[in-house]
Amino acid sequence: MRVRAYKLRTSGPSDISGLVDLFDRKQIRAEDVICIIGKTEGNGGRNDFTRDLAMTVFEDLFSRLLKISREEVTERIIFSLSGGTEGVVSPHIVVFAREGTESFEAASEKRLALGIGFTREFAPEEIGRLAQVEETARVISDVVRSLKVDSPSDIHFVQMKGAIPSYTWEEGEAARLSGNPMRSDMIYSRGASALGAAVALGEVAIEELSDDSICSDWSKYSRTASCSAKPGLTRTEIMVMGNSRYWQGDLVINGGILKDMIDADSVRSVLGGLGAGMEVAGQASAEQTARLVGIFGKSEADPRGEIRGQRHTMLTDDDISDTRYSRCVLASVVASVVGDTAIYISTRSEHHGPLGGGTLALIARVDEV
Amino acid sequence: MRVRAYKLRTSGPSDISGLVDLFDRKQIRAEDVICIIGKTEGNGGRNDFTRDLAMTVFEDLFSRLLKISREEVTERIIFSLSGGTEGVVSPHIVVFAREGTESFEAASEKRLALGIGFTREFAPEEIGRLAQVEETARVISDVVRSLKVDSPSDIHFVQMKGAIPSYTWEEGEAARLSGNPMRSDMIYSRGASALGAAVALGEVAIEELSDDSICSDWSKYSRTASCSAKPGLTRTEIMVMGNSRYWQGDLVINGGILKDMIDADSVRSVLGGLGAGMEVAGQASAEQTARLVGIFGKSEADPRGEIRGQRHTMLTDDDISDTRYSRCVLASVVASVVGDTAIYISTRSEHHGPLGGGTLALIARVDEV
Amino acid sequence: MRVRAYKLRTSGPSDISGLVDLFDRKQIRAEDVICIIGKTEGNGGRNDFTRDLAMTVFEDLFSRLLKISREEVTERIIFSLSGGTEGVVSPHIVVFAREGTESFEAASEKRLALGIGFTREFAPEEIGRLAQVEETARVISDVVRSLKVDSPSDIHFVQMKGAIPSYTWEEGEAARLSGNPMRSDMIYSRGASALGAAVALGEVAIEELSDDSICSDWSKYSRTASCSAKPGLTRTEIMVMGNSRYWQGDLVINGGILKDMIDADSVRSVLGGLGAGMEVAGQASAEQTARLVGIFGKSEADPRGEIRGQRHTMLTDDDISDTRYSRCVLASVVASVVGDTAIYISTRSEHHGPLGGGTLALIARVDEV
Amino acid sequence: MRVRAYKLRTSGPSDISGLVDLFDRKQIRAEDVICIIGKTEGNGGRNDFTRDLAMTVFEDLFSRLLKISREEVTERIIFSLSGGTEGVVSPHIVVFAREGTESFEAASEKRLALGIGFTREFAPEEIGRLAQVEETARVISDVVRSLKVDSPSDIHFVQMKGAIPSYTWEEGEAARLSGNPMRSDMIYSRGASALGAAVALGEVAIEELSDDSICSDWSKYSRTASCSAKPGLTRTEIMVMGNSRYWQGDLVINGGILKDMIDADSVRSVLGGLGAGMEVAGQASAEQTARLVGIFGKSEADPRGEIRGQRHTMLTDDDISDTRYSRCVLASVVASVVGDTAIYISTRSEHHGPLGGGTLALIARVDEV
Repeated sequence: MRVRAYKLRTSGPSDISGLVDLFDRKQIRAEDVICIIGKTEGNGGRNDFTRDLAMTVFEDLFSRLLKISREEVTERIIFSLSGGTEGVVSPHIVVFAREGTESFEAASEKRLALGIGFTREFAPEEIGRLAQVEETARVISDVVRSLKVDSPSDIHFVQMKGAIPSYTWEEGEAARLSGNPMRSDMIYSRGASALGAAVALGEVAIEELSDDSICSDWSKYSRTASCSAKPGLTRTEIMVMGNSRYWQGDLVINGGILKDMIDADSVRSVLGGLGAGMEVAGQASAEQTARLVGIFGKSEADPRGEIRGQRHTMLTDDDISDTRYSRCVLASVVASVVGDTAIYISTRSEHHGPLGGGTLALIARVDEV
Repeated sequence: MRVRAYKLRTSGPSDISGLVDLFDRKQIRAEDVICIIGKTEGNGGRNDFTRDLAMTVFEDLFSRLLKISREEVTERIIFSLSGGTEGVVSPHIVVFAREGTESFEAASEKRLALGIGFTREFAPEEIGRLAQVEETARVISDVVRSLKVDSPSDIHFVQMKGAIPSYTWEEGEAARLSGNPMRSDMIYSRGASALGAAVALGEVAIEELSDDSICSDWSKYSRTASCSAKPGLTRTEIMVMGNSRYWQGDLVINGGILKDMIDADSVRSVLGGLGAGMEVAGQASAEQTARLVGIFGKSEADPRGEIRGQRHTMLTDDDISDTRYSRCVLASVVASVVGDTAIYISTRSEHHGPLGGGTLALIARVDEV
Repeated sequence: MRVRAYKLRTSGPSDISGLVDLFDRKQIRAEDVICIIGKTEGNGGRNDFTRDLAMTVFEDLFSRLLKISREEVTERIIFSLSGGTEGVVSPHIVVFAREGTESFEAASEKRLALGIGFTREFAPEEIGRLAQVEETARVISDVVRSLKVDSPSDIHFVQMKGAIPSYTWEEGEAARLSGNPMRSDMIYSRGASALGAAVALGEVAIEELSDDSICSDWSKYSRTASCSAKPGLTRTEIMVMGNSRYWQGDLVINGGILKDMIDADSVRSVLGGLGAGMEVAGQASAEQTARLVGIFGKSEADPRGEIRGQRHTMLTDDDISDTRYSRCVLASVVASVVGDTAIYISTRSEHHGPLGGGTLALIARVDEV
Repeated sequence: MRVRAYKLRTSGPSDISGLVDLFDRKQIRAEDVICIIGKTEGNGGRNDFTRDLAMTVFEDLFSRLLKISREEVTERIIFSLSGGTEGVVSPHIVVFAREGTESFEAASEKRLALGIGFTREFAPEEIGRLAQVEETARVISDVVRSLKVDSPSDIHFVQMKGAIPSYTWEEGEAARLSGNPMRSDMIYSRGASALGAAVALGEVAIEELSDDSICSDWSKYSRTASCSAKPGLTRTEIMVMGNSRYWQGDLVINGGILKDMIDADSVRSVLGGLGAGMEVAGQASAEQTARLVGIFGKSEADPRGEIRGQRHTMLTDDDISDTRYSRCVLASVVASVVGDTAIYISTRSEHHGPLGGGTLALIARVDEV
């Protein structure tokens, strides 16, 4: 089993020419595509229709190629499209395909392993509480097991689209009066998803957590999570990536946390941790940059209003959202190290690294195994 | 003669408490203040009143302390307040005072030297043409001479607020019909100011330039300029900073160009060029950061729409201006190297470094001479 | 006793030339000024410094003229400066002065009467609860009594800047655990202020209200309130305007509610209710427009997401705030009736008229009494 | 021959459920659809992808229903989708179908007649000059003739998507040096399109115009035009609507100019001019509102910076574009008269009514003929 992955620049949200070209040149087959992660040039907010536009053309393409319905396309392939290409961020997609059959012999080298999973459906009152953390951790653990990694520390990236089940006004009032008000919103869903990853990978013990810890005890966090959340989604979609001796190919992944949004040294540390000549003192060389296939970061405007003791104004600017600023900031910093602006940057990082920090994962092309 | 300089964080555009405290603690005297450079948290555009607010309180303060009129304050002290603290940029001011008398003996060590000058008044038809370049170069040359530097390469920062004289509609039409349409706007004024610095410091020969070169031949540029331009201003205000053996104190400056907006290696190069233990491999240490007194950068959203061959969307976003994006980008990159977010970042960099690049100057505290 | 009021156009937030001119021409005396209401061209949000700029110059002016400290200026004169001149709104101020002595004989004609008052200091836990409503109602009732109106229906405009006392994180947590979480925010403070006016003027009986009614039972509302709220303010500042037989002068006021943001017929109704030839079928004539001295409206983007059964997108636009949209909308509608764009428009109208609606007050010049 | 038209609310840019329902209920046939005009909830700028999203689903729908290619769909049906639903504007489409055969006998009643046409392809140097005006006028005249109206004054709405042919940098330079710089941009293309309508309908004589008149002599304007312009389009797409005795159905149209953006009386005048009981004093009744099928307006932030002698700030706000403000303003004013917020509002109105004004057309349902 192996993963093939390609980074494709797009000229707009509906540009699928790179993908069609990959299929035409038989680099990958449409039936092997397992997920597509990408940035579109919207605002990342409620009135960002660039993701809808991209989904419309993706669904149309795969529906035609695979001769299945649009609904079946989204059951089969996980799409993580994030709006907002602030600053230097270059609109692009990374397409992942999985080929071959399971290997039963461990190689000496580890290569990128990728698995996906889905939680059961959540009740709205479970979101942002231990029930969500536990179920998320359970599914991640199952996927991790299937990847046959040496240890949980070989897992470097857990990308999730978290559930936010809807509820009626009456249900909301009942919950409020019961003393357990609904938390079925983006903030709590992302936070609980991230803690689910932390629990699954042994970074946080479930016993250390209570409902009150979620979005409150910031000393508990994941080193691998990259979570969004989508209103109306009733189950969480999960992709797990790590390095395994049972997987072949020419890709490796590494991840880590950023202490704050200008923590370029940690970016260098994640880059160097890929091994295979990816270590850098300052900025990556053109040759190193060319080997990067995926760059995935989570950003945040420090909620305390300061970075390294100095005030920032991202949270008090009523013209431009902090979500747009923090994506711009972190993408600039990451690009200034890795030399590549095709960065999947996603914002708000509750329990993704320490407060005011975030997570970063990098995938690079190395020797074929 | 020596320069004293202090970086003061502000809690808002009208916060002068740090300055008052400096005076109270007799760190500097109000009568020695020669210029104040700072960032206020506006949008940097036409409806940015944060600069007006800051000027109102500064004028009031110095008018009271020096017992002069508000007009005399602005004749005596150069204020360069720039709106826009996007992303990590921390609102702050850097106050410069000049003390002591001229020194006639060269020391072995060079220290920060600072001079100011004003061009003659420009006619509107001169702006953006050789006349502006030549007069700007003449004044800069005079100021440079007064600083008694060893060579023009000791000059690292030429901060200018460029003239944009007004003209009537009839004058504009007459100019247009004559085949020499008015260029009295921000773009041309900044461009000609920057070329004036390049000429004065021997980086570009005046003979190589014609009116057509300005804002057109991007191979000609300054390595030290940091220019803004102000509608209605009839003469250009100029500050020149460099290192001189005839100046004392505990400050040194270094400057250089950035090849593009993610060129962190050049930031490191400017930092290391300060000497005195400011060399860094990745990011500055806390001790190094603490020694920085001024960080001055010029940013730009590459007008070709690409950075290192990859598309950016800063110029086609009709919700957020490229001026705000590019300030956010460069400040993030600079902060990720120097470890300090109190960065004076100003945008649009015509003839400031190569196309898509910019300039950077850093002032650090070193041993007292 | 009489009120003099003048509408003064401003060229920017720091433009006091119109006011200085009024004093120079002895139209009013600085010592008689009791309040200034105006619009400045900011965004009306947290990073709107236009109000600070205006306040800085106003305080400076009155401090010089009245030979009192800046603090005494704000104790003596109520300033209601609102940022945000979206669309057609023209930046301006309306200055009110009170002259003469109390009259003990009722005239046949009623004229504009103006009084001010302050609540006691509020504890943070009182905000958004009955305690705030009751104290606000008490003070309004006192001021109303002092104006000697024939009936509460002669009161047409109650402008308030509501208290939002600060509290510590610990106090907030304690309140939350007690089951009465803090409501010391803009929304609840405005809502309770408005209900205070409704109670004071007999539109809502205090017995009909409980803490739960506030910002929840939208069937209860004021017909006269115009409330803002200011973080950190510990008491509410109140101005009350109505028509009284015991006041002289050449001004009258009328007010009323708007059923929704495009309810031009209600604007016409308020205009016509001024009497004295201000009735209009469609739009006001130039002569009628010229007689308007003050136009005060409260706007709102209908929180139900629809206007007259049709969807609006003001609440789901992440590029532009609904506060800016709704001010733009209502000011356009009002201007299209009254013919004047110098409109004091303020947004979010909890309990100001029905849900999705707002309030409007107009002051016009009539015959001198 | 008759026109059927339906106004359909949309829940988002990709919502075609209303259209599908019309086809399902056999209200109109897909093969009769001739044009679709609508508003989508983007920003109306370069990064507005809502129009692309809508076009993607429309092309897909008609391509399936009519069994033609996507390209053939856009050759057959004119789509005018305008982004920007600021303020009260409700996202919607108006679909027009043409049925039946040409009538050779004049009825006593006039009904809505609709024709479409295309100019020849333009060279870039023709745009914004008389060549564009003349060719546009020629095509409009042809379409008008085909509608068999009694007089040009029966034409009330000329909707155009204007050509903006691309040119190379070298062609641009050559044009500049020849003294006739390229005008192939949105402003000039819209301006020349509007003058083309004015010439075709006899409102302006071609002899009165020169190249210099275009976007300069604002005393010349159209009373019917509604022009946009699209970069890359090489010919102008034209729809003409009027009332003709040779057309049947239940629709009539009326149009007119607005003197400025708050000119509600002119809105009433256009409404009343529909006849058939659509006259109003203030605001339309619910019954009158229900009869409106299409509302089409052109808005503008007065370029002189004033409305009725009072300053507006739409042109100096660097946070929000004047295009967004002026759409918000005019839509609010129109809605406050007609009682309907599903308004097709498009901005910048060069030669559409007088400077600072615009045009308005209304379609209403009347008795069947």
